[in-house]
Amino acid sequence: MQLTHLNEKNQPKMVNVSEKSDTKRIATASGIITMSKVAFDMIVENRAKKGPVLQTAIIAAIMGAKQTSNLIPMCHPLVLSSVDCEVEQIDGCSFKLFVTVSLVGKTGVEMEALTGVSIGLLTIYDMIKAIDKSMKISQIQLESKKGGKSGDYLRH
Amino acid sequence: MQLTHLNEKNQPKMVNVSEKSDTKRIATASGIITMSKVAFDMIVENRAKKGPVLQTAIIAAIMGAKQTSNLIPMCHPLVLSSVDCEVEQIDGCSFKLFVTVSLVGKTGVEMEALTGVSIGLLTIYDMIKAIDKSMKISQIQLESKKGGKSGDYLRH
Amino acid sequence: MQLTHLNEKNQPKMVNVSEKSDTKRIATASGIITMSKVAFDMIVENRAKKGPVLQTAIIAAIMGAKQTSNLIPMCHPLVLSSVDCEVEQIDGCSFKLFVTVSLVGKTGVEMEALTGVSIGLLTIYDMIKAIDKSMKISQIQLESKKGGKSGDYLRH
Amino acid sequence: MQLTHLNEKNQPKMVNVSEKSDTKRIATASGIITMSKVAFDMIVENRAKKGPVLQTAIIAAIMGAKQTSNLIPMCHPLVLSSVDCEVEQIDGCSFKLFVTVSLVGKTGVEMEALTGVSIGLLTIYDMIKAIDKSMKISQIQLESKKGGKSGDYLRH
Amino acid sequence: MQLTHLNEKNQPKMVNVSEKSDTKRIATASGIITMSKVAFDMIVENRAKKGPVLQTAIIAAIMGAKQTSNLIPMCHPLVLSSVDCEVEQIDGCSFKLFVTVSLVGKTGVEMEALTGVSIGLLTIYDMIKAIDKSMKISQIQLESKKGGKSGDYLRH
Amino acid sequence: MQLTHLNEKNQPKMVNVSEKSDTKRIATASGIITMSKVAFDMIVENRAKKGPVLQTAIIAAIMGAKQTSNLIPMCHPLVLSSVDCEVEQIDGCSFKLFVTVSLVGKTGVEMEALTGVSIGLLTIYDMIKAIDKSMKISQIQLESKKGGKSGDYLRH
Repeated sequence: MQLTHLNEKNQPKMVNVSEKSDTKRIATASGIITMSKVAFDMIVENRAKKGPVLQTAIIAAIMGAKQTSNLIPMCHPLVLSSVDCEVEQIDGCSFKLFVTVSLVGKTGVEMEALTGVSIGLLTIYDMIKAIDKSMKISQIQLESKKGGKSGDYLRH
Repeated sequence: MQLTHLNEKNQPKMVNVSEKSDTKRIATASGIITMSKVAFDMIVENRAKKGPVLQTAIIAAIMGAKQTSNLIPMCHPLVLSSVDCEVEQIDGCSFKLFVTVSLVGKTGVEMEALTGVSIGLLTIYDMIKAIDKSMKISQIQLESKKGGKSGDYLRH
Repeated sequence: MQLTHLNEKNQPKMVNVSEKSDTKRIATASGIITMSKVAFDMIVENRAKKGPVLQTAIIAAIMGAKQTSNLIPMCHPLVLSSVDCEVEQIDGCSFKLFVTVSLVGKTGVEMEALTGVSIGLLTIYDMIKAIDKSMKISQIQLESKKGGKSGDYLRH
Repeated sequence: MQLTHLNEKNQPKMVNVSEKSDTKRIATASGIITMSKVAFDMIVENRAKKGPVLQTAIIAAIMGAKQTSNLIPMCHPLVLSSVDCEVEQIDGCSFKLFVTVSLVGKTGVEMEALTGVSIGLLTIYDMIKAIDKSMKISQIQLESKKGGKSGDYLRH
Repeated sequence: MQLTHLNEKNQPKMVNVSEKSDTKRIATASGIITMSKVAFDMIVENRAKKGPVLQTAIIAAIMGAKQTSNLIPMCHPLVLSSVDCEVEQIDGCSFKLFVTVSLVGKTGVEMEALTGVSIGLLTIYDMIKAIDKSMKISQIQLESKKGGKSGDYLRH
Repeated sequence: MQLTHLNEKNQPKMVNVSEKSDTKRIATASGIITMSKVAFDMIVENRAKKGPVLQTAIIAAIMGAKQTSNLIPMCHPLVLSSVDCEVEQIDGCSFKLFVTVSLVGKTGVEMEALTGVSIGLLTIYDMIKAIDKSMKISQIQLESKKGGKSGDYLRH
């Protein structure tokens, strides 16, 4: 068994996808940020007004997804077709961010969705860190992917 | 109580640090990636040879830390003094990545350390995802910071 | 009526173009920079020699057009087919910059042409600002576009 | 009289500021986008809800200001101390965007303020262009600057 | 005879490739870095262990190839299909770096291969410069290209 | 003897410069591109007119120098004070590009000068490659550096 991202000399490479056909692909990733009640309430209240914290996070997630191939060394540059985000309040003073990315191309967009989630959650951390430095980002994971030769994936 | 990153019209802003003095600051963040035994063993074995998976992650973490102000909308551009990384194998088929960043400047480097950790762990995910798509990135958190007006922080 | 760049929760999104077909698209934008007679004459005279001010602006416009999706949050990354610029001297101590961008793809290149114009004119400002700080950039606008489902556009 | 950004061979250069001292500098720029009544009303109404159009523009302006030295060829990389934005509704179906940038450093931040304004207004254009392609961006100009050897400037 | 990258007004342009068809293209470039025996032995010995110098160079070469259109003003943005590198020890205390890039698209990838080589060799320089500042980078050249209308090329 | 860019676990790191003082530093690098007589004459004749090939190379060199810390993994982000370039025609159908960079800071600017030279020469290659694909880039080297604890360097 051989890691796809290493060549025969065990050096990193960008996998060759030139023989793959352009197909429609879609991936959704998610992640959670957990914080103190004070910090959580402040975002919730702020959301009731104009919501700049969560909105900044969403914009950062979209722009971050577009930077994936500049950040993750072996990722292919991609012409993304869409990026869409959703934030949910969840129990335990937490927010869960979902990022869905689609593409018509030769390789999947899992990394773009995961990178978008990471950058979005880091942005929430940044905007709240003066209030709570002990926030934790967790459960960054792939929720589902469709399209491509390796088949569909749905986390259970 | 007012969020520091919002102005009086409730719009995001980059906080004004021009009155702060240049002091030495340092921050360490960490995070964990957990995977299947097959994937874990493959990295461990690979490490025994030349270790390109973890080494690529370290390089990505360092380069990612340098991109923080381009990714997190309200972060200040900074002239980092150092970035250093360490990867530990931990129980439960996991790797823990530590990133330490230092600076002589007007603002802290927590976000740089946290961004480095996130990008480094995403890089491990990318290089192993052909084997295990269910990997999970968790516990991205600040371990400690020193320097700056808000005082030192040590996670307990 | 719903803004295309907002999702059903009123959050910004990158519009989904994955169902669109790849067609040839072209857009031209223009804009004007107006300055003092001293500054204007200096560029004109300089142009007579080797013209580095306007040439730097043209190169910046081309490179700026390529950065559009990194700058405008909801813009799609695009594989541009061409970028071409032209500068005209016009009455009133002004220069008018035209940028034309073409693409074979799923979405238009208006933003790329407009961004190229903006960056090109800012570059003229930068190179002349030691002489005249009161310069004004105006009338940045779309001149024409062709291709795509929304039809052709010609400013009248 | 010699253009500061050209060397003795008439080639562009980045001006040498190494002998300048670090002083506090601040600059404000502004610009206007004018649109149809339908488009204008849509943003105003949208603002009454959560305001994502103008908020996206503000975030893009802040991030764009940070990209100035990557976009304008002869601009120095700078460690900005703050970026703050304000949007005003003005007569004639227009919005006016102000961007204020500060720095402790060796060179002024006029270009950063002007670039922030340009990117912010282009972002409004992008988000509304499905409704009105004839929008016009105008009067991008320096409002004021303080600090530095060339003295203060106030547009009158 | 007219330079392809200049328009009829002798200004730089990005060549129009919109009429070209998408074909498979591949290019290999190489270059050499030559150093003192002390520096050379240090890398060779280091390679025997874990090889971070050459591995960092390979990762930088891959990431650098992806930045080509952001660095070389008239280069088209491209959706690269693969990047693969190889380092050889050669006589005279030198390392030779090969970078091979492939693409399915409208224009060749020679510049991407050459840029990857340049950035990779500069990275070796950077990591060794504390030991030897007199290193020399030489013979950066195209080895071969295939595909595209201008035909195949093989250096002899 | 230990490589400065590796930590005690033999992993790459960005060297810690936080204890260094801010001093004035300057570095000059150079490199050569050699081509066929046809290609060389075309640039020389073009230079006699408006010179866009060499001017584009100079602008690319300056912008490339500013990207150094984004390209070379272990390089520190720096606030450059100046970048200046010069191109000489030399015997053997060649051009020699010099790039001089200065800074007041904690670390040297050799890599910025060398990166500027590399990107500038690649830009010449790009603009001429339709005429001559066998061009060669050679002798990229540090000419001199001043300032910093490791002392001055002058190539002999």
